[in-house]
Amino acid sequence: MQIRPASPADHAAILAIVAPTLAAGETYAIATDLDDDGVLAYWLSPTHEVFVAADGGTILGTYYLMANQAGGGAHVANCGYMTAPAAQGKGIARAMCEHSLVRARERGFRAMQFNHVVSTNTRAVALWQKLGFDIVGALPQAFNHPVHGYVDSYVMFKKLI
Amino acid sequence: MQIRPASPADHAAILAIVAPTLAAGETYAIATDLDDDGVLAYWLSPTHEVFVAADGGTILGTYYLMANQAGGGAHVANCGYMTAPAAQGKGIARAMCEHSLVRARERGFRAMQFNHVVSTNTRAVALWQKLGFDIVGALPQAFNHPVHGYVDSYVMFKKLI
Repeated sequence: MQIRPASPADHAAILAIVAPTLAAGETYAIATDLDDDGVLAYWLSPTHEVFVAADGGTILGTYYLMANQAGGGAHVANCGYMTAPAAQGKGIARAMCEHSLVRARERGFRAMQFNHVVSTNTRAVALWQKLGFDIVGALPQAFNHPVHGYVDSYVMFKKLI
Repeated sequence: MQIRPASPADHAAILAIVAPTLAAGETYAIATDLDDDGVLAYWLSPTHEVFVAADGGTILGTYYLMANQAGGGAHVANCGYMTAPAAQGKGIARAMCEHSLVRARERGFRAMQFNHVVSTNTRAVALWQKLGFDIVGALPQAFNHPVHGYVDSYVMFKKLI
């Protein structure tokens, strides 16, 4: 499994991973009714540096890296990660996060922040904690989960230097 | 003093308030080198509902109201407020925040969140606390202040219902 920058040839595979995850509306605070162009415009935003986790020709996951804020906040990175359903439980998210931490340091970021980790996404919360992220804030009932209703989200933060 | 929706006739006055505040780089995590078009494109973003605090023909302050996130996070509002330097200390920010809380409830928002209140902006932190916002998170050294260097920022949150 190799993690490498996404190329235009990967866009269909990226769409196949990202579109159903956004449509499910359980983990990202992003519109659930985006069409394919909208999904790709979001994930491949000019502000995003996008990577894929590939096993030969098969794309197992994708992530983006960006500055979380501009101006005085531009030294803090932000990422989003998604793993293909068939590849879950195989360490792909962990590998992508570890890759992103290396890449963020390379780019000079001093920290990484996740703004909105839905508390019911317990696997993600536990993984980020294992990788050194702290829950630095809890947002009360800040996410309207399609199954669980209003649930808390966490702000998670890790210093890189 | 009246708080009302901004009109195109207010844009020059809005620019005169917002541009120097962003250029100073002490309170907003936004690029400090935006030109006038960039400043107005930011403050008057299509996602922002923009108001002004006016005393007759004089604009004393401006604020925007928006959804802080999309999808499952769209029920939480976000605002930015700026007061003209000559009008500071006269309760304009308080009046704008109170107005925004009413307006946010009208629009059906269930909470309001400030994502990045710079800790050195002590007057703002104290005012938001007086108006019922809690510090729900501290982001370590998340803001690079032009005078104080890397300082913490706060995530502040207030339920509206």
